[in-house]
Amino acid sequence: MSRMIVQKFGGTSVGSEERIASVAQIIQKASIDNSVIVVVSAMSGETNRLIKLAKSFGENPSKREFDALISTGEKVSAALLAMALHQIGIKAKSYTASQISMRTTDSYSKAKILDVDGQKIQDALNQGIIPIITGFQGITESGDVTTLGRGGSDTTAVAIAAQMKAERCDIYTDVDGIYTTDPRVVPEAKKLDKITMEEMLEMAGQGAKVIQIRAVEFANKYNVPVRVLSSFEPGSGTLISLEEKDMENGLVSGIAFQKDQMKYTLHGVSDTPGIAYSILGPLSDANIEVDVIVQNISVDGKTDFTFTVSKEDEHATSEVIKQMKNSLDFDDVIVDSQIAKVSLVGVGMRTHAGIASTAFKALSENDVNIQMISTSEIKITIVINESAVTKAVKALHEAFELEK
Amino acid sequence: MSRMIVQKFGGTSVGSEERIASVAQIIQKASIDNSVIVVVSAMSGETNRLIKLAKSFGENPSKREFDALISTGEKVSAALLAMALHQIGIKAKSYTASQISMRTTDSYSKAKILDVDGQKIQDALNQGIIPIITGFQGITESGDVTTLGRGGSDTTAVAIAAQMKAERCDIYTDVDGIYTTDPRVVPEAKKLDKITMEEMLEMAGQGAKVIQIRAVEFANKYNVPVRVLSSFEPGSGTLISLEEKDMENGLVSGIAFQKDQMKYTLHGVSDTPGIAYSILGPLSDANIEVDVIVQNISVDGKTDFTFTVSKEDEHATSEVIKQMKNSLDFDDVIVDSQIAKVSLVGVGMRTHAGIASTAFKALSENDVNIQMISTSEIKITIVINESAVTKAVKALHEAFELEK
Repeated sequence: MSRMIVQKFGGTSVGSEERIASVAQIIQKASIDNSVIVVVSAMSGETNRLIKLAKSFGENPSKREFDALISTGEKVSAALLAMALHQIGIKAKSYTASQISMRTTDSYSKAKILDVDGQKIQDALNQGIIPIITGFQGITESGDVTTLGRGGSDTTAVAIAAQMKAERCDIYTDVDGIYTTDPRVVPEAKKLDKITMEEMLEMAGQGAKVIQIRAVEFANKYNVPVRVLSSFEPGSGTLISLEEKDMENGLVSGIAFQKDQMKYTLHGVSDTPGIAYSILGPLSDANIEVDVIVQNISVDGKTDFTFTVSKEDEHATSEVIKQMKNSLDFDDVIVDSQIAKVSLVGVGMRTHAGIASTAFKALSENDVNIQMISTSEIKITIVINESAVTKAVKALHEAFELEK
Repeated sequence: MSRMIVQKFGGTSVGSEERIASVAQIIQKASIDNSVIVVVSAMSGETNRLIKLAKSFGENPSKREFDALISTGEKVSAALLAMALHQIGIKAKSYTASQISMRTTDSYSKAKILDVDGQKIQDALNQGIIPIITGFQGITESGDVTTLGRGGSDTTAVAIAAQMKAERCDIYTDVDGIYTTDPRVVPEAKKLDKITMEEMLEMAGQGAKVIQIRAVEFANKYNVPVRVLSSFEPGSGTLISLEEKDMENGLVSGIAFQKDQMKYTLHGVSDTPGIAYSILGPLSDANIEVDVIVQNISVDGKTDFTFTVSKEDEHATSEVIKQMKNSLDFDDVIVDSQIAKVSLVGVGMRTHAGIASTAFKALSENDVNIQMISTSEIKITIVINESAVTKAVKALHEAFELEK
């Protein structure tokens, strides 16, 4: 019996008729030795075109209609890719989320996958047909179309790989793998052949941009090995492996960074029990993902509560804070949109001390002012001014000798 | 209880963000006194853009994938129109064919509507929500997407009007009604305030282009009054009425004509019983609509069989004829792509003699050579050379004094 693999192609990989034809060749090759299931994104530019159309009817269009609108892009690319495969003699059929019952929660634009009916996919495979599935989207219990958020096609691919018990999920993109940091910022950045799921989770969350964090979470939960590789050039990419990494591989695996962040500080909050919940609860209810959170010690019964969110949630966050004023006592809100996050990630951190001090020394020597610090077992995150990002990443890359 | 009407907006009516906003105003006005259900086409140009994408993967892409692809256009315009209505404070929701179970046959690109679940539409209306339904498309028993053929959105609208027992179906387009003939060809052409279903059936079938023939058939079958009017300028349009027209209204109501036709003659067919079926059967199986059919008398046990099809079926027709060669004995095939059809239509023809002779006299005086003639109770159709269309239509328009 042949091995089953899922291949996911991102927007740039299917960005033109020529690219789609070239992706068909990749699928054809893979299908010689494997049972292949394909997941596609919209052609690059298409989702933005649709968003622009929507914005002409107001800045905050109905989320149900917005999802119905932007989910059409993947339907287009899936059908075109099926045609491209037919053209080279490969049997293929496109499937929408509705057709394979890709069920999600009803949080429009940020829906979470609940389950997927693998039978239709299996039926296609049994008939020697390659199923081409629309990424990024699902349907609710009542049949409304949802989307999974930017980059959600990765999550679709991994969810299908998990459901179908595929051997591997290959995420094809326009980069040839995961690097120690962004090579556009640090030219010495090195491609990693392998990275652990845990490291990747921390990297993706900080905006490594190659693969969506939820996809890695899914992969982690269901033990799906994921490989990230390029559809533009041959190469084995980076395998996001299930195994623990050899300790020799170094302390820090990579440096992630992310701009387009907002920092909110609720100043002078009355320090009563349950503050954190009364702030984070409403944000979560509004589907806003809060990232770094810092609460300072209380002075005179008052405290400052600071958190960061993605800039795209700016409007929603302001609305939530406005309503919070009714139930929570605080003096004022300080908003900073000129910030960025930088994270050091590495499984090695667990067992080695001194990483934080090496990092802060390097930053200090380069005059990078640190605004917030947050640490986990395998990650150190700092929030700094947006303008200092390049300087900070270069300094850290050098300090941990990642170019070697 | 307010009256229920269906409003259908064609491609040019929703051809841009501005047009969509203007259509929202039309819907708003209608919704003051009526329960409104809306059906939309794709934004003009969109379907052609998608077809062009498909054609880059071969001239004859898989029909299943082709339908999956081109059906995305209406999903876009439906969602955008819902957003435009929200912007002016009107509750609205877009619905795809799948969401309202618009079931069709599985003849891709030429599917016929089987039934539609009115409950979801009624639920929306009961909640004061205007349902915006994607025209032109349906789903098969197994959930595959189908399309109804060019102009199929009209049929969607009438089918929904019939299902919901609406009082009227308003077809908004870029012309202000039905004319005695094409005003671009005969400037004296007059707008008709009213036309009977039967006349309209004959007009549409011959390419009046304002409304699709199947839509009128549906309207006729389910007694749905249809009105054709412009979304660009105010006006009452033309009502396609259920009642018989007053006889005084003249013998001929209009002149329709259609180019983009192909004429096939199977020359020297052995005249055995069942010829017509053995030719028309395979064409019908291939979903090719044969229009004018003429079989000449038999000479020496051989006959000529001539029929016309739409130019878009050229490829399919050639294929079918090629295969026919195996089972049918004929000498050769004569193909003429330089033809056009011209039809005189009028309920009055039933009770008045002499119309044919008036017509043929006018054509003869203008040197129009007639290739084929076919008549029905309320229509006379002639096939002529494509280059003679304007001359023929003008001559007939004048002969029957339609400008008065």
